[in-house]
Amino acid sequence: MDEPPFHVAEWLNTDRPLTLTDFRGRVLAVEVFQMLCPGCVSHGLPQAARIAATFAPDRVAVIGLHSVFEHHAAMPPLALRAFCHEYRIRFPVAVDQPGNGPLPRTMEAWSLEGTPTLVLIDRQGRIRARHFGQVPDMALGAQIMDLLHEKDA
Amino acid sequence: MDEPPFHVAEWLNTDRPLTLTDFRGRVLAVEVFQMLCPGCVSHGLPQAARIAATFAPDRVAVIGLHSVFEHHAAMPPLALRAFCHEYRIRFPVAVDQPGNGPLPRTMEAWSLEGTPTLVLIDRQGRIRARHFGQVPDMALGAQIMDLLHEKDA
Amino acid sequence: MDEPPFHVAEWLNTDRPLTLTDFRGRVLAVEVFQMLCPGCVSHGLPQAARIAATFAPDRVAVIGLHSVFEHHAAMPPLALRAFCHEYRIRFPVAVDQPGNGPLPRTMEAWSLEGTPTLVLIDRQGRIRARHFGQVPDMALGAQIMDLLHEKDA
Amino acid sequence: MDEPPFHVAEWLNTDRPLTLTDFRGRVLAVEVFQMLCPGCVSHGLPQAARIAATFAPDRVAVIGLHSVFEHHAAMPPLALRAFCHEYRIRFPVAVDQPGNGPLPRTMEAWSLEGTPTLVLIDRQGRIRARHFGQVPDMALGAQIMDLLHEKDA
Repeated sequence: MDEPPFHVAEWLNTDRPLTLTDFRGRVLAVEVFQMLCPGCVSHGLPQAARIAATFAPDRVAVIGLHSVFEHHAAMPPLALRAFCHEYRIRFPVAVDQPGNGPLPRTMEAWSLEGTPTLVLIDRQGRIRARHFGQVPDMALGAQIMDLLHEKDA
Repeated sequence: MDEPPFHVAEWLNTDRPLTLTDFRGRVLAVEVFQMLCPGCVSHGLPQAARIAATFAPDRVAVIGLHSVFEHHAAMPPLALRAFCHEYRIRFPVAVDQPGNGPLPRTMEAWSLEGTPTLVLIDRQGRIRARHFGQVPDMALGAQIMDLLHEKDA
Repeated sequence: MDEPPFHVAEWLNTDRPLTLTDFRGRVLAVEVFQMLCPGCVSHGLPQAARIAATFAPDRVAVIGLHSVFEHHAAMPPLALRAFCHEYRIRFPVAVDQPGNGPLPRTMEAWSLEGTPTLVLIDRQGRIRARHFGQVPDMALGAQIMDLLHEKDA
Repeated sequence: MDEPPFHVAEWLNTDRPLTLTDFRGRVLAVEVFQMLCPGCVSHGLPQAARIAATFAPDRVAVIGLHSVFEHHAAMPPLALRAFCHEYRIRFPVAVDQPGNGPLPRTMEAWSLEGTPTLVLIDRQGRIRARHFGQVPDMALGAQIMDLLHEKDA
């Protein structure tokens, strides 16, 4: 099956570049954020950290995707590194590739509306949810467990 | 299979007395509380309401169990009715039967340590979890969904 | 000068009955509450405790006034004692005297609209503020300090 | 009287450069922050906005001082502008002048320990408080009112 496109300029918090194939067999939660987005800082990123703390890492993986679509000059990778250090972001963070317009490439390919968006990718690599804004923890925990129970293809 | 014992003196928020058999086929979340227990008011009861709001009622049922084991004279059913009115408790609430000592009968039969305790009963009527104190929403949502995926016996 | 009327049926958390005259020379914050009023439990009473923790007790005194105007049978003094124990209310609490109608006597005499209401009484014994509902901590801290700076008559 | 030194590289949210003399006669609250400091974002800056909302602007002024002492390259004025836009910072913000070492000049001259620090300057231009970390709203409101009651020299 075809994976969703995933255009990464560089990675933080990982020794080597990752691809979506690396997460096959696990549910993957992708927190799409901008470091200067207040809702990402107060809600999205802390929730992503709770996903990582709640589920076993061999069943559910968590990564960030820094998809800058405004104030580009204010959020270069150098600033993102300082941000991740200060906010104790421990999971791998991919920097979305700049596109031709203001939208970065992966964000555009995935048809995302803004940040924060929590994208859930199932064990077979398919995008199954795009939660833009806030999704409550209880519903999210249930949805992730639901994906974990799906049969392998 | 034998159901857990369930000794109820009276009910609030329901037209007729209920038994655990009435919930067979659904996951049942029982919020065991005392109306003058601060942790029940700030954490347990709001979380029970979130369970009811998150899951479809034909799959997951929520009830309260008022298990008074201290300050008995301060929390009679008459006061509980005022409390449920003021705190907008909408789900059915059972009043645990007084026991011979300070512990009410169901609380003792279920070996509970205190309040709040969230008890999860599976679709076949078996107690599967006793969460004393605080359990995070995300883990709880996942656990309830896990129980929903269990095969019928 | 005439003090405001203060009709107390009984006291908790104090060795002897108090009168408003006992607080002359200090600013007095009176938290008017009902034990089954959600806004009192979540906002009013914790704020009263913060007043007591912020200001020196020889300058600012804090008391509660339990003014029951609904669900009277559910909130007798016996239940109030259990409530104050469970919620760690340390300051003296007066039980407002029942009136002829649903409103207790002091609440009616002070023309209060409901609970929670924080009443501020100045160093000369005059009612200077009736904050019904929520008042922010910063504005309240400023107002209390303002009253402390008033000249003696 | 000598004012505290105040070394500003540039200003945001004001039409013209300001000096401490501009605030003489008012109490001045200076929120010293870094845009990538989590405690500044979650506590310090929202509290500064509450000061501005609580007190009349002709009695109490609020400004920010962006004093970068770590991750300098990640927090240039260009990024600060985007941050202030996204976080709806409305009060004037001064950018502290870089020093010879990591500490910016005003921060060093005022002997500050870190960020967030709320500095209170009295109506005569003297530094009267340096609150490093968190200070509760109620105590802060009282302290500002206390300074407002001081006699003119």
